[in-house]
Amino acid sequence: MIVGFQGEPGAFSEEAAIARFGLIATQGFESFDALVERVASGEVPLGLLPCENSIHGSVVRAYDLLYAHPEIRIVDETVHRIEQALIGPPGASLAAVRRVESHPVALEQCRRFLAGLGDVEVVAVADTAGAVRAVASAGEGWRAAIGPAGSAGRYGATILATAIQDEPENYTRFFCIAHDGRPLRGLGRAVLAFVLPHRAGSLHRALGVFAERGLNLRGLVARPLPGRPFEYIFYAEIDCPDEALSQGLVEAAGGEGRVLGWF
Amino acid sequence: MIVGFQGEPGAFSEEAAIARFGLIATQGFESFDALVERVASGEVPLGLLPCENSIHGSVVRAYDLLYAHPEIRIVDETVHRIEQALIGPPGASLAAVRRVESHPVALEQCRRFLAGLGDVEVVAVADTAGAVRAVASAGEGWRAAIGPAGSAGRYGATILATAIQDEPENYTRFFCIAHDGRPLRGLGRAVLAFVLPHRAGSLHRALGVFAERGLNLRGLVARPLPGRPFEYIFYAEIDCPDEALSQGLVEAAGGEGRVLGWF
Repeated sequence: MIVGFQGEPGAFSEEAAIARFGLIATQGFESFDALVERVASGEVPLGLLPCENSIHGSVVRAYDLLYAHPEIRIVDETVHRIEQALIGPPGASLAAVRRVESHPVALEQCRRFLAGLGDVEVVAVADTAGAVRAVASAGEGWRAAIGPAGSAGRYGATILATAIQDEPENYTRFFCIAHDGRPLRGLGRAVLAFVLPHRAGSLHRALGVFAERGLNLRGLVARPLPGRPFEYIFYAEIDCPDEALSQGLVEAAGGEGRVLGWF
Repeated sequence: MIVGFQGEPGAFSEEAAIARFGLIATQGFESFDALVERVASGEVPLGLLPCENSIHGSVVRAYDLLYAHPEIRIVDETVHRIEQALIGPPGASLAAVRRVESHPVALEQCRRFLAGLGDVEVVAVADTAGAVRAVASAGEGWRAAIGPAGSAGRYGATILATAIQDEPENYTRFFCIAHDGRPLRGLGRAVLAFVLPHRAGSLHRALGVFAERGLNLRGLVARPLPGRPFEYIFYAEIDCPDEALSQGLVEAAGGEGRVLGWF
């Protein structure tokens, strides 16, 4: 089985895929769009799409893409701890570092650590694992990268410091997406998309459909409705013991809607 | 009166400030954080903070900053139409353009127009108005920028094409923020932040507080609660005829909460 992810080899998304599925073949794609398209066509049987980070919030592009691709379903989820490491070329030492490269979000997450390094140039690049690869292959001891500790082994690099992010509790949650739509475990979870009429109380009534049945609402994401300024699609994630019920909920909510997945 | 905005002179945010308030003095800040801090300290009496775009959705940083700064209140809103223009140096012509520079979001919004230009290099830079300034001052006819048409006049540049974005309906909504908290017009609108207990139906019950009173829910934004992974702060924007009622709603919703503004 091949599991697709967005990013370079060694990316957190690939770490998450390996942590969830064990010894598998992985394939990286340069964008969420490219990943979703290859899963939608059935070329890649399973993909990991980040939907939420515990610090940064929803990954809204993931919801937009799931809505745009009815041929894909969410079949599982996995939560992965994000732990940033400082990584240099073989033989490097922390004291010699004069430049640190990484994705802007990773740099932002390690602001206190970077300030503590003193006079160090900070350079934003496109990708964390890509930064590790670049630093490892350049082999200059004054250049280091921030990225997943696991990527150091892949690129023959040296870990100079671990768990360097300001906020120790940092988790990314991924949807596992597939073309065939078969839930992997049956956790009893549904993700529903619904477009509601523009009336007072319509969201309250829709959420009432869950509340009346005692179904816990785990999350709610609102996204713009394409071509209709300031109207919204709501994505609700709920505890829902069976798949048939999830379809009934969309109908009971009283708007247009769709089940994005039951798993 | 000085109105603060984020961006370079000529930015869409400055356009929006002038469209709303007429002939005023404006001051640009390099980040949302810097703008909010200067409004919070009372140094800048009024600021325009984008909260939502009709295509891209919520500007989540705006909500995080409003929550972090109880000394600021939302006192008004304004909606501004975003219309991208292609702008070159004085005397430039569309046929001569070989490179187009702008902010990545503006480039993305004009994908079809750019594809129609044929063999043109597309370069991402930090800011739309900054791109116009750079292109105007370089004075090379093969370089053009995508940005607000109004910024062309400011930098003595030439408009080569207008309304070039793929999606004609593109609006950004701004909160007007102030230290004194006095609503500018009294539109009858409230923005409430609330942290709810982690229980089935708690969001439904909170929204019921609005629904029971016939108050229309205009928007709902969920953001991570700092330090508590996968718990949320909800921001609800409602039609609310008077200010005293808005405070009562937060209490009736049954969680911790705060009124971010009544206007």
